[in-house]
Amino acid sequence: MDQFSTIHESLTAVFQVRRFPANITAGESGHDGMTDRRPPGQRSELAVLLWQRALDPQQGTWSLPGGRLRNDEDLDTSARRQLAEKVDVREVDHLEQLSVFSAPDRVPGPRRIASAYLGLVPLTADPQLPSDTRWHPVSALPEMSFDHGTVVQHARTRLAAKLSYTNISFALAPDRFTMSTLREIYCAALGYDVDTTNLQRVLSRRKVITPTGDTATPGRAGGRPASVYRFTDSDLRVTDEFAALRPRI
Amino acid sequence: MDQFSTIHESLTAVFQVRRFPANITAGESGHDGMTDRRPPGQRSELAVLLWQRALDPQQGTWSLPGGRLRNDEDLDTSARRQLAEKVDVREVDHLEQLSVFSAPDRVPGPRRIASAYLGLVPLTADPQLPSDTRWHPVSALPEMSFDHGTVVQHARTRLAAKLSYTNISFALAPDRFTMSTLREIYCAALGYDVDTTNLQRVLSRRKVITPTGDTATPGRAGGRPASVYRFTDSDLRVTDEFAALRPRI
Repeated sequence: MDQFSTIHESLTAVFQVRRFPANITAGESGHDGMTDRRPPGQRSELAVLLWQRALDPQQGTWSLPGGRLRNDEDLDTSARRQLAEKVDVREVDHLEQLSVFSAPDRVPGPRRIASAYLGLVPLTADPQLPSDTRWHPVSALPEMSFDHGTVVQHARTRLAAKLSYTNISFALAPDRFTMSTLREIYCAALGYDVDTTNLQRVLSRRKVITPTGDTATPGRAGGRPASVYRFTDSDLRVTDEFAALRPRI
Repeated sequence: MDQFSTIHESLTAVFQVRRFPANITAGESGHDGMTDRRPPGQRSELAVLLWQRALDPQQGTWSLPGGRLRNDEDLDTSARRQLAEKVDVREVDHLEQLSVFSAPDRVPGPRRIASAYLGLVPLTADPQLPSDTRWHPVSALPEMSFDHGTVVQHARTRLAAKLSYTNISFALAPDRFTMSTLREIYCAALGYDVDTTNLQRVLSRRKVITPTGDTATPGRAGGRPASVYRFTDSDLRVTDEFAALRPRI
């Protein structure tokens, strides 16, 4: 390779809100005020898909799915192709470029530049995984390969920011959901408690969610039947443009 | 180069709101309702910094500043270094990665992957430019090299989106400004008319701008002295997180 040539790879942080045994995250801060409506002994957590390296370099550490860009594909195509080897990509509802990781010494050997992606899988999906691959709570990552831990933190920060000004949660939620389920998703993705009433009020006012008119069957705890909602749109959009900045129709 | 190796380059769309002779943009839609407080015969436009290629490929077309990543630098460092060759980088108040342009055939010859950046220069800066380099209104681009026109449109879309949910306009505005000047910047950057009163109300409520307590000397048209404002912060932040999504203190 000459002075300027590099290898380009994609790396995708695929996130899903998943239920883990409570002991995995016991004592974690930020969830103490959360009323848990999950089965006893389970907690909802934002999880990331990782595979364990069988060979050196860094044998035994955990990596994000990804790999080298081929001559005949662009990066988005490459990221989806690489994901298909780890998880059924039809279950990835949202995929976006994060940023490029390009420190000269980020991996040993020939220089590799990584385009990092954020991928989101809905709560109800349960993709088949190869034997070297597992979901890990983002709050308790195992020993990560190279700079992959930094990529995960970057992806989580982007997700939390977009939860606050877009409808991106459509890609983490089932098609139809109660506010209790949606709150579970927001609490897990943000890492702190969110009030159900406020969440319902803000998302309804911004037309992010729409009532379906149906109600859910009460759970074991009984109580009133809960309203069932859906997302108004299933494409990413900014949900609160400044009123003053909208073009005149 | 082997099957996987590529050349990586940065390309930066540097934007500034500038005043152009009115005939450059006469008849452009979207500005008809705008009360122009500029000197007669001038209009404010979002402009982008371009240089003209003296040699083939595509001799005579206009390109974004940028160039090859070196072995000893990361992409952000490289983008700033390349800009320094075209414009004093101390005048670039904001620089952020947009996305990666990686279509296999985007340029002739060995494969080049481009990391695109958005750069912003404040209204009052007047950087020295080399002789092959000029500011062009984004609404009337000359013949552009390769996919550089697409990069400019992508950068403009990102800027317009961020104007609606962040304080990014700090990087286009002078340190101290009247609402009339700030409106000039928003109208030019968005490409449509914005009401001064609404703009002042929304930006004040969200604590994006703060009155300095000073007033500006009335212009030739006379009238009441205008209040002078400054930006509350000069680091990028999201200005409207959902109230329901903020962590409890």
